[in-house]
Amino acid sequence: MLKKPAQNTIEVCFSPKLFENILTTSDYVTVVVDVLRATTSICAALACGAKSVIPVSTPEEARQYKQKGFAVAAERDGLRLDFADFGNSAFDFMNNDVTGLEIVFSTTNGTVALETAKSSEAVVLGAFINISALSDWLVKSDKNVVIFCSGWKNMFCLEDSIFAGALVEKLLEKADFDVQCDSALASLDLWKIARTDLLGYIQKAAHRKRLRMLGVDDVLEYCFTLDAVNVVPFLKNGKLIEIYE
Amino acid sequence: MLKKPAQNTIEVCFSPKLFENILTTSDYVTVVVDVLRATTSICAALACGAKSVIPVSTPEEARQYKQKGFAVAAERDGLRLDFADFGNSAFDFMNNDVTGLEIVFSTTNGTVALETAKSSEAVVLGAFINISALSDWLVKSDKNVVIFCSGWKNMFCLEDSIFAGALVEKLLEKADFDVQCDSALASLDLWKIARTDLLGYIQKAAHRKRLRMLGVDDVLEYCFTLDAVNVVPFLKNGKLIEIYE
Repeated sequence: MLKKPAQNTIEVCFSPKLFENILTTSDYVTVVVDVLRATTSICAALACGAKSVIPVSTPEEARQYKQKGFAVAAERDGLRLDFADFGNSAFDFMNNDVTGLEIVFSTTNGTVALETAKSSEAVVLGAFINISALSDWLVKSDKNVVIFCSGWKNMFCLEDSIFAGALVEKLLEKADFDVQCDSALASLDLWKIARTDLLGYIQKAAHRKRLRMLGVDDVLEYCFTLDAVNVVPFLKNGKLIEIYE
Repeated sequence: MLKKPAQNTIEVCFSPKLFENILTTSDYVTVVVDVLRATTSICAALACGAKSVIPVSTPEEARQYKQKGFAVAAERDGLRLDFADFGNSAFDFMNNDVTGLEIVFSTTNGTVALETAKSSEAVVLGAFINISALSDWLVKSDKNVVIFCSGWKNMFCLEDSIFAGALVEKLLEKADFDVQCDSALASLDLWKIARTDLLGYIQKAAHRKRLRMLGVDDVLEYCFTLDAVNVVPFLKNGKLIEIYE
């Protein structure tokens, strides 16, 4: 008699500070999310032909790579650091030729979450711009899924949470997952409110206001565009590479 | 010319792990929330005439108090500990004469959050059963408000979050607060979904399922009853006392 396989689970984590408390303990893929703007930008860079993206946690590490001749994208609190070739906007990669480049990447929140997640069995990146490619890949991988929101300086943030809800919904449309986690259920409810007017909804988010004050929110609409690219960034030996198809 | 006073803020914190990251830095009241069931039960105990509730973090501390002759309420993972006089159900206090008692109280999540919050300038307890008394008192206190959800073992939980949303709404009805925090905005949205069928909504919450499995969810309906009591438990010298009117 065939043993019925256990259902894969979906769990959502709202902050790097909460990652060590996730309940999923084995056989899972971690999806790191920083919609505004790191994971959107890294998806865009790989879609534009970058060979890989090397995430680093500190501006100092990024500076050292720069001295070794690497292309560097580095931002803190929304602004490009002076020594960097690129900031943290998807447009920085779309408006320059990044074909074949290995790009070192350091941002306020996204790379910190990546650092936290790297003990996971597998790490991929999620953003609205790759949500369908990502959900396809996750369903094919047939593992438990942990959606890991970067948040803002360890706090809950709306944009990553509504993305988590959108991804939970996509996954449930495509396969039969078990969703018990309260964070996942809350994300799904927030997404259902936000989806009808995504840009309108996100106007109230604190980080969107921060970007507006900095005058760097030109890329906002792109960050909330579903399926602009067909890539799944996958962390392998410390580098993010594209693995979709 | 009179100086226009700065608006008081409301911030929501979803887990004890995130409390050190709150942005409000001065002149604030912390509202500790553990709807299922610690803050509901403590409100009920004080409403039933208990003189004070002494929160302790560990069952061992509770046991030591018991040996000194104190009445003790102690629970772990939903069940009353064998040496305790009471568990963590509001009914334990409503169905016994607790008049004048000082009750030592230790629970899985609620007292841990209290321990974390005690460095705040002022700490009060919130639950659906005291939401109007609490919001009155908070508006009169004229300070910034931090709503601190206990969660479940440091994870986000739905019942505390929708209470946070309900309290944000109450406060905004009664006074002009500044709400920039994404957690507060998300709580408010979740509350707007849940409010029309609170018990129905909470059926999906993970902790509600835990209580059902333990057979101790008889008090659930009471925990979601608005304004059953007119108390505001306030932490003073390590003891929770009633201060409302």
